[in-house]
Amino acid sequence: MADARTYLDHNATTPMRAEARAATLAAFELCGAPSSIHGDGRAVRKAVETARHQVAALLGAEAKNVVFCASATEANNMALCLDWQRGRGGSLQRAAVSAVEHASVLSGGRIPADRIDILAVDGHGVVDLDAAAALLDRWQAEGVVGLVSVMLANNETGVLQPIAALAEKVHAAGSILHTDAAQAAGKISFDISGIGADLVTISSHKLGGPLGAGALVLASQGLHLSNPLLRGGGQEKGLRAGTENVPAIAGFGAAAVAAGRDIAAYGERSLALRDALAAGLRQAAPEVVVFGEGVARLPNTLCFAAPGMPAETALIALDLEGLSVSSGSACSSGKVKVSHVLTAMGVPADLAGCALRISLGWESSAEDVEFFIAVWTRLRQTLHDRKQHRAA
Amino acid sequence: MADARTYLDHNATTPMRAEARAATLAAFELCGAPSSIHGDGRAVRKAVETARHQVAALLGAEAKNVVFCASATEANNMALCLDWQRGRGGSLQRAAVSAVEHASVLSGGRIPADRIDILAVDGHGVVDLDAAAALLDRWQAEGVVGLVSVMLANNETGVLQPIAALAEKVHAAGSILHTDAAQAAGKISFDISGIGADLVTISSHKLGGPLGAGALVLASQGLHLSNPLLRGGGQEKGLRAGTENVPAIAGFGAAAVAAGRDIAAYGERSLALRDALAAGLRQAAPEVVVFGEGVARLPNTLCFAAPGMPAETALIALDLEGLSVSSGSACSSGKVKVSHVLTAMGVPADLAGCALRISLGWESSAEDVEFFIAVWTRLRQTLHDRKQHRAA
Repeated sequence: MADARTYLDHNATTPMRAEARAATLAAFELCGAPSSIHGDGRAVRKAVETARHQVAALLGAEAKNVVFCASATEANNMALCLDWQRGRGGSLQRAAVSAVEHASVLSGGRIPADRIDILAVDGHGVVDLDAAAALLDRWQAEGVVGLVSVMLANNETGVLQPIAALAEKVHAAGSILHTDAAQAAGKISFDISGIGADLVTISSHKLGGPLGAGALVLASQGLHLSNPLLRGGGQEKGLRAGTENVPAIAGFGAAAVAAGRDIAAYGERSLALRDALAAGLRQAAPEVVVFGEGVARLPNTLCFAAPGMPAETALIALDLEGLSVSSGSACSSGKVKVSHVLTAMGVPADLAGCALRISLGWESSAEDVEFFIAVWTRLRQTLHDRKQHRAA
Repeated sequence: MADARTYLDHNATTPMRAEARAATLAAFELCGAPSSIHGDGRAVRKAVETARHQVAALLGAEAKNVVFCASATEANNMALCLDWQRGRGGSLQRAAVSAVEHASVLSGGRIPADRIDILAVDGHGVVDLDAAAALLDRWQAEGVVGLVSVMLANNETGVLQPIAALAEKVHAAGSILHTDAAQAAGKISFDISGIGADLVTISSHKLGGPLGAGALVLASQGLHLSNPLLRGGGQEKGLRAGTENVPAIAGFGAAAVAAGRDIAAYGERSLALRDALAAGLRQAAPEVVVFGEGVARLPNTLCFAAPGMPAETALIALDLEGLSVSSGSACSSGKVKVSHVLTAMGVPADLAGCALRISLGWESSAEDVEFFIAVWTRLRQTLHDRKQHRAA
């Protein structure tokens, strides 16, 4: 068992599904750029267009409104721009993002920092709709049309945001809503018209597709971006230059089909495992705090802390036992630092510094969960014994 | 033979080398984000760092100066920015790009159009060094420090630019030189210190690696970019946010090793095939014009025109015979339009409208070349007969 690791960090990245691998490998056999007009070019274009329909179907969008790019980070950077225009309206003047966004949204993309407002969240990590409504009223009073970006599901806590309710307010104020659904897509069912967002970011490798593909999905053709992020090529209707990554896009499409097909079973199974995990930890350690416990969350994500068990120590000890988990977002520098998500939720720094994130995948098993509980419980006992020894 | 196509469009994209495929598939077995601190994360980080050394070695660069991204188009967009700083110097004020650059450079990236000067080329497609020197003198006289971007090899004609000579002039004027080497890397040997460029763009899929990886390679650590193109994550030393595409990067590294190993043999063989191709076409049609014939070119690229044989007609007819070639850059909208490269070289529009690009790959054979000559010669005869018939 020395080599068999237990991977419980699926919100960072998750293994490719068999269907995605097969589609990716099949596309490796093609050669040609999709914009070439010869037969080889047409064959790869067909693979891209098939995937476009498959990805669109996962969120009930129209294929023509899917803009493929290389990652959710790129899609978020593409979305975070004041040059979106609705119909013949002018450009946007301001943006607002929630305090718990992924770094690729929080960074503001191409929007100057002084044009960005931060939307607060409550103690559960849910965006404060009243505060958002007040901001939108202010914008409207000032004649400001802006871009609001709030994620569908948080990567660290799994907490779901009330996007549909927010969309109503945003649209009533004449503004535009973007949602980063990289963590939600493939884990929970949603429909682009149901949530009401104008722009939706999704990622291939978070739902069992290969790395190297993401998409910005538009709710309608009514939105235009006059200033693409990647320029110098007519690909993706001029919205994203560069030869399309055909194998990754084909794999993304196949993964979207598989994820959509399995989504109910995945949700049910993950939820049972996740709740068993929380119950097992609580049984061993009643002091365990689960973040976002009182609100709707992704079924696969458990973010918790046991006071006095620093995340850094726990991560290293768990890693030695072959357990891969995270202390929060892994998408950054590899350093353990206090989570901006938990800080925004008002979690004290010493408790936030103890937070671990367990995120289950479509292959995770009851054995994985039991193994984690057993190792973690032993670790807690060891730390406890050491503390008592020191105190004695 | 109905299904066996002859692919002669390798400057658009070329099949993956066996070594690249193996490395990509091996990385598919890994799971984890390179910035995760657990064992799974460390394993993928190791794969990325191995590839970084392999890619650096191809151009004699230091591994720490390789910034991985998703494509050459992205690397060019990253490079085309006035926020590069040398040491403690300020940002840049202007840019100059040659008239024959790829669209991803010509578009100017994040540089406003009114800050970009265009460098003319001569009738062979070579940058006019005297005109470039005059511009740099003017910049220097005005206290302007700028970014010059001139490609190493042209994608349409294969013409090589005098980058080393240009670098001397650019550096004497205190400015910075970027070169798009996407077409050159893996086809001709060059060394980053030998060519003297400060920033070099290279692409994985142009040299037999998978789609989905590119790199911007810095000549030294003395250059800093204060304003990354993709923001919101500490990856690539903060220069390029987003989970690294580990399988594509691993394949890129393996392809770089294979391309470097085979480069002399590839060059020799391509040159012989390319010259046989030109000779065969000339034998059938003495009126054939080869663009850039008088100057140094990539060994694999032949851009030619036969007056009276429009490229659009030829492409369709050749395609029906199973031949994939290009009328110039395939990186755009799939439309046949008169090449900006040939226009900049002073080629009249009616002749430029007849230009075809044949680009050979590491698997191209004498049979491929003979087949092309035979089909093209027949096509020319058919068009000729039809014209005589009409005239009669």
